[in-house]
Amino acid sequence: MNPEPDYSAAYVVIRTSADRQGFGLAFTVGRGNDAQVAAIEALAPLIVGLRVADVLSDLGGFSRMLTGDSQLRWLGPNKGVIHMAAAAIVNATWDLFGRIEGKPVWRLLAEMSPQQLVDLVDFRYLEDALTPAEARQILERALPGRTARQADLLARGYPAYTTTPGWLGYTDDKLVRLSKEAVSDGFGHIKLKVGADLDTDIRRLRLARETLGPDARIAIDANQAWGVQQAIEWLQPLARFEPYWIEEPTSPDDVLGHATIRNAVAPIKVAAGEHIHNQVMFKQFLQAGALDVVQLDACRVAGVTENVAIILLAAKYGVPICPHAGGVGLCEMVQHLAMFDYVAVSGSTDGRAIEYIDHLHEHFVQPVMIRDGRYLAPTGPGIGAQMKPESVDAYRWRGDHR
Amino acid sequence: MNPEPDYSAAYVVIRTSADRQGFGLAFTVGRGNDAQVAAIEALAPLIVGLRVADVLSDLGGFSRMLTGDSQLRWLGPNKGVIHMAAAAIVNATWDLFGRIEGKPVWRLLAEMSPQQLVDLVDFRYLEDALTPAEARQILERALPGRTARQADLLARGYPAYTTTPGWLGYTDDKLVRLSKEAVSDGFGHIKLKVGADLDTDIRRLRLARETLGPDARIAIDANQAWGVQQAIEWLQPLARFEPYWIEEPTSPDDVLGHATIRNAVAPIKVAAGEHIHNQVMFKQFLQAGALDVVQLDACRVAGVTENVAIILLAAKYGVPICPHAGGVGLCEMVQHLAMFDYVAVSGSTDGRAIEYIDHLHEHFVQPVMIRDGRYLAPTGPGIGAQMKPESVDAYRWRGDHR
Repeated sequence: MNPEPDYSAAYVVIRTSADRQGFGLAFTVGRGNDAQVAAIEALAPLIVGLRVADVLSDLGGFSRMLTGDSQLRWLGPNKGVIHMAAAAIVNATWDLFGRIEGKPVWRLLAEMSPQQLVDLVDFRYLEDALTPAEARQILERALPGRTARQADLLARGYPAYTTTPGWLGYTDDKLVRLSKEAVSDGFGHIKLKVGADLDTDIRRLRLARETLGPDARIAIDANQAWGVQQAIEWLQPLARFEPYWIEEPTSPDDVLGHATIRNAVAPIKVAAGEHIHNQVMFKQFLQAGALDVVQLDACRVAGVTENVAIILLAAKYGVPICPHAGGVGLCEMVQHLAMFDYVAVSGSTDGRAIEYIDHLHEHFVQPVMIRDGRYLAPTGPGIGAQMKPESVDAYRWRGDHR
Repeated sequence: MNPEPDYSAAYVVIRTSADRQGFGLAFTVGRGNDAQVAAIEALAPLIVGLRVADVLSDLGGFSRMLTGDSQLRWLGPNKGVIHMAAAAIVNATWDLFGRIEGKPVWRLLAEMSPQQLVDLVDFRYLEDALTPAEARQILERALPGRTARQADLLARGYPAYTTTPGWLGYTDDKLVRLSKEAVSDGFGHIKLKVGADLDTDIRRLRLARETLGPDARIAIDANQAWGVQQAIEWLQPLARFEPYWIEEPTSPDDVLGHATIRNAVAPIKVAAGEHIHNQVMFKQFLQAGALDVVQLDACRVAGVTENVAIILLAAKYGVPICPHAGGVGLCEMVQHLAMFDYVAVSGSTDGRAIEYIDHLHEHFVQPVMIRDGRYLAPTGPGIGAQMKPESVDAYRWRGDHR
């Protein structure tokens, strides 16, 4: 489905009168980046001139203001270009907050009180699945272990899985070689792309299983290639290789379709999220029993603030999060959300791992640190979206006629 | 939810080397119109230079090309700004087609063969609800009466309902006066906005019922104001006034929420569609039994082509369509879809009506014609989106820095 991505980003820098900065971005795969920029420019007048203290003391209200603007919400509401624009701004604001407090965003979140976290959430359309009282209960249940888990996280990091070996264009030899490298790098969990040709999928999955042995987790990712019935049929001959999950088997909008697929293909897990466009959709995926794995994304929904709601929904339904990453800066940002979940919400890393792709980290001031197949917890302030000035300068799009 | 709309549009003109033109638009409510323009500009390179004959002989393939671009679909897929941009282009292309053939789009559609119509539909994610064979069967079943219904349509027009009396800002006196005018203009079906204040809703609905009598259809529209449980509770004291439908009781993404509300509030019907963002969502609303009324919109989904799929889905599930209109040019465009449904798909106008708002028609070259509460069938070529040059000139946005 994505044969020729040209990884791009609409980059947001918030500047305060006290010369503080916050950085965020909307990730795109090339064409359309200008539309993403235009949407951010449409939101900008809503925030220019606000008092920093007012914004940072009510980030829930700030997010509701951005996503609830009565004219701009017509373009969504809460989906697509305008919602990703809100995400870039919300994440830049959390980055600013982290820089002012001198803390990485995961720690900022993990040190907030249950009530402060509940106040971030827009419950308007969630209460049939999660009430403020339930959210608070989930957070209070996790209070006792916060300190120990924070220490554990700083010492050992958070589990990762790697998509590096599994791209469709790779030869069998390269697949085998990269799979072996993944193991020697400490990864017990990899992911292969599937869905273009069934025979190829069978051959590649067999090769990966033979290379990695029976205990490795081999996830597969169809990137929305199939209809519902087609997904179920395609997966039958792949089942004997025990894929760990099937990711995006069909349209990311199809809650009921995912539920049908999940019922049919168990024990293969069903995973999705990089294109699930807001918390109301995640709510339904969980209500319908359509997901085994919540692949939240740092930039698809409205940033950190909405992701707090999604993490709480996942906890309520007992479904683990395995964030989507890769792209431009997604690894750098999304690790904060998984680490917050571990320290202050689910309290667990069981069945959880952040996607890792070894790609484009060199452009970031605080690139992710991976060791033995785990993300080391970032200690620098902010959310990690700041690019190096020389990268911004080298890759800045100058074809733009604005 | 929409307190201060500033009705706007991103206007698309397609020009061919033979000096033919096609007109389409994306309706917005003000801020964000620039982002809509940028998304249309991002799609434009995909169509500039195509051969007109190739496009018009495969409008299904053309639509799949526009909505399936591997980079641009990251911004959706099939939702929000990028999807409405595709709609504007797709509708402009149908307008061009109608102009070349010298026919209104409703007639163009109603004279296509069942197989030609089936070929328009992208079945990738639909087949668990509607197969090509089923779609063809629905269309063949309606073949016999096409000529008679076309004649009936030309003679009598298509039922309308009016939203003119029911805006939230109006005084009680104005509500009563406009309701009486609606009746004397031939409308037996009006709509009131609700959801801001319960006591006000009770008072206004009682007034409207007293004014119009027990037989009039009085629909109510909450514009997404409520959560699921809140919708059910709010509607209880309104039920005694027998509202015909409740429109957009909650988030337009919430398929399962609408199903819950529908079960709880029957016999009040549940209606939605102006923000249901694509055919996969409509599929689920119908699969889940979440809708009594399909309010398709000319510009929210990818134009005429995707609306053909939605009309076929509605026919499969036996749910009537009552298109959303108003805005800028929505009445002019959407009437073609309802009329096509009557002549060539459902074969019925029972329980069906197109929304009508008496607003901004003076800017269109072929404004809608309403007589005795019915839309007269347009006979001019195209889809009706062409604006008068003097209106384009007078209202063109010049604050734009492009």
